[in-house]
Amino acid sequence: MRLMSLAALAVFALAPPPALAEDLAAKVAAVRDKALVDPVAWDFVESLTTEVGPRPTGSPAMTRARDWAVAKLTALGFRNVHVEAFEAEAWRRGAESAEVISPYPQKLAILGLGGSVPTPKSGLEGEVALFSSLKAMMEAPAGSLKGKIVVVNQPMGRNQDASGYGANTAVRMQGPSEAARRGAIAYLLRSLSTDDTRLPHTGRLNRAPDAPEIPAAALSVPDAELLARMAARGAPVRIRLKMDSSDVRKAPAWNVVGEMPGAERPDEVILVGGHLDSWDPGTGAIDDGAGMAITTAAARLVGEGRPRRTIRVVLWGAEEMDESGEAYGLAHAGEVGRMVVVGESDTGPGPVWRARLPKGALAHPAMQAFAAAVIPLRVVVGPEPALGSGSDTVDLVKAGAPAVMLSPDATRYFDLHHSADDTLDKIDPKDLAQSVAVWASFLQAAADSDIDFRALATQP
Amino acid sequence: MRLMSLAALAVFALAPPPALAEDLAAKVAAVRDKALVDPVAWDFVESLTTEVGPRPTGSPAMTRARDWAVAKLTALGFRNVHVEAFEAEAWRRGAESAEVISPYPQKLAILGLGGSVPTPKSGLEGEVALFSSLKAMMEAPAGSLKGKIVVVNQPMGRNQDASGYGANTAVRMQGPSEAARRGAIAYLLRSLSTDDTRLPHTGRLNRAPDAPEIPAAALSVPDAELLARMAARGAPVRIRLKMDSSDVRKAPAWNVVGEMPGAERPDEVILVGGHLDSWDPGTGAIDDGAGMAITTAAARLVGEGRPRRTIRVVLWGAEEMDESGEAYGLAHAGEVGRMVVVGESDTGPGPVWRARLPKGALAHPAMQAFAAAVIPLRVVVGPEPALGSGSDTVDLVKAGAPAVMLSPDATRYFDLHHSADDTLDKIDPKDLAQSVAVWASFLQAAADSDIDFRALATQP
Repeated sequence: MRLMSLAALAVFALAPPPALAEDLAAKVAAVRDKALVDPVAWDFVESLTTEVGPRPTGSPAMTRARDWAVAKLTALGFRNVHVEAFEAEAWRRGAESAEVISPYPQKLAILGLGGSVPTPKSGLEGEVALFSSLKAMMEAPAGSLKGKIVVVNQPMGRNQDASGYGANTAVRMQGPSEAARRGAIAYLLRSLSTDDTRLPHTGRLNRAPDAPEIPAAALSVPDAELLARMAARGAPVRIRLKMDSSDVRKAPAWNVVGEMPGAERPDEVILVGGHLDSWDPGTGAIDDGAGMAITTAAARLVGEGRPRRTIRVVLWGAEEMDESGEAYGLAHAGEVGRMVVVGESDTGPGPVWRARLPKGALAHPAMQAFAAAVIPLRVVVGPEPALGSGSDTVDLVKAGAPAVMLSPDATRYFDLHHSADDTLDKIDPKDLAQSVAVWASFLQAAADSDIDFRALATQP
Repeated sequence: MRLMSLAALAVFALAPPPALAEDLAAKVAAVRDKALVDPVAWDFVESLTTEVGPRPTGSPAMTRARDWAVAKLTALGFRNVHVEAFEAEAWRRGAESAEVISPYPQKLAILGLGGSVPTPKSGLEGEVALFSSLKAMMEAPAGSLKGKIVVVNQPMGRNQDASGYGANTAVRMQGPSEAARRGAIAYLLRSLSTDDTRLPHTGRLNRAPDAPEIPAAALSVPDAELLARMAARGAPVRIRLKMDSSDVRKAPAWNVVGEMPGAERPDEVILVGGHLDSWDPGTGAIDDGAGMAITTAAARLVGEGRPRRTIRVVLWGAEEMDESGEAYGLAHAGEVGRMVVVGESDTGPGPVWRARLPKGALAHPAMQAFAAAVIPLRVVVGPEPALGSGSDTVDLVKAGAPAVMLSPDATRYFDLHHSADDTLDKIDPKDLAQSVAVWASFLQAAADSDIDFRALATQP
């Protein structure tokens, strides 16, 4: 409670906005209230998950998603709707199975990691070496993992700010190569999940160029705990693993773009969006149907009122393979100077619980209007500045674009993320509408003012 | 609140127990308190789910489960541990898949129903006829289901007393034959589930002898809702279904039995238990590892104190195919007159929230002692009499055995039941211990008294 009070004080201790800003504050509050009853975001994600469903980069569904997105942005009144093509790495899952063969035979629920090599066609077998953390595995004596199937049973905490995920991604990203370097023949991790369902959570792995490639998959949380109980009994636990998959190193991929042109300064661009691709087991509802829906609906609501600056929506097409942000950044490097601010929604359907603005921005009347509008929606505004906005805007931010971070409550996000449970029914329409209201408030304040985030960031 | 107060009044408005019963009341309270810290039930279900796992009737795992159960009962000090063989229908799942092929191609999560026929090897395709209830399907115009894949999207309520399941089982049991009779080529139901995970819940179907047999499977709740959204768009929805399975009409099956012999009246038998077989997707933790663990641990605790009467534990071996109760009833028909009372635990790990005793029994000092012991554990005692105890004791009760019903709180049970989510981590050890305490209290009161439930039931 104390911390929240201090944050609120930090907002309101500032000088009251000048008269000009009163008009902006009223506009911001009005668009917020419109957003709270606007059906566009829900219709967006309902349509995408029902009519397209899962859409990994390189899949036929992703091609359908591209066409769906162009039609949707066009129907919503966006201008300059177009597709920006690039090439991305793609990975396609085949049949997968895992089972304990001794001493206690039973099947295990797994999902291969994106980028994993397949096992031999007949599968592979090996004895389990189980660790309670990646660190413990990396400290294993030299040679002790040779020929083993490594299992890392590192649990992940439930956090509102999604920090548990960042703290654990190395288990999935670096774990496979680290195990391979130490002689392991396969790698299984406890899913990066906060839930107890028997659904594994997939995700991409990193291939270390100097390590052998071994098959790698995620176990559901109950399966990881089952293996830990088996291993604790002392007898060697043997697993049979079969995984099929195929890689396309240069698959066609697309970022889909639409704009609501500014009435006075159309060259000044506020860029927001989410990612169109998704993992295959779910329908990409929370990751990232919701993020696209929120930013698109907010951009449309604000854009309809013809604010001064242009609002551009980008639906990135290969986020899960970490490719679309780089492609967009390369293609638009020359334009970063005209980007007023960039923002990305990729942590679920909300509600937004925290807003971080570019450094120094909170003092500006436009951001005061934003704060006043969203504090009643239970948003903690600042005072820490945003250091970035998400993985698809990293390259733009590195090139100098100011970033805004409007954080959805991630408490339940990692129950669902990258699993078959990423489905429409997990989205609460009221949370989604609150998120649209927060984004619309920000967009109205930023697009309909002359706020210069770069200049504010350099003030003493 | 009003109802609970009335129930409590009904218990205590009776005459106080005579002096003899005070000793029994103390013994009941003592065994209850021992049970609350007894590790046997947890160890039982932890061992079974880890070392055996899923164990459908007719599977190699069920043979291992039989041997595990004999060893476990023996190690726990039961006497006369033995196996009673019978033959049962068994069904074995093969590969299964389902997908929408048009107009919105995506995969569906299904589980075939126990007893379903397979599809042709190449699968089958058909147009969906979707209904919001079984009743709506049965009222469909004659001929309208010919060649269709029927989908019944009937939702199930969440109830403490498990009544929603009973109210919906016809969707799974009778639905397939009713659809087939009307010309359908396959049948899909929304899982009998209260959860929103993307895990389907399986279970047995009934084959109507006069209806064609068609493939039948359960959709996960999100998949059923997805199909409903697709169907609502108006264009015909086509599904491809592939299911493999095999039937064994006479598979070997076993009930495993152990006794704690009575010190004074060993021929008078109190019979309790749960079922050893389980469905294949989970590990049979809540259904019914927990029920066996609870009744076995309670029987052992009470039996160790050498009460007057014998306590028998039966671990039924084909409950999911509805075969073991009948086999046991047939084999023990001549013994029913010596059965003091029968009780079965097959609705999960608890806590027990309600006790229903045989008609008229609550007036007896032994049951007063039971009530006094379990009311502090938040159990609602009576006043309605138990009409039965569960599916494996139906035949004994029909033959005249009095029944006790100690009902576990089923609020979360159907989130997990018959799905891959039926795993050990879903059991709260405190709830399990409370259940053991309630059962042990009942067993102490019934086994260490001369209560005659049959005589009490016939009193005016």
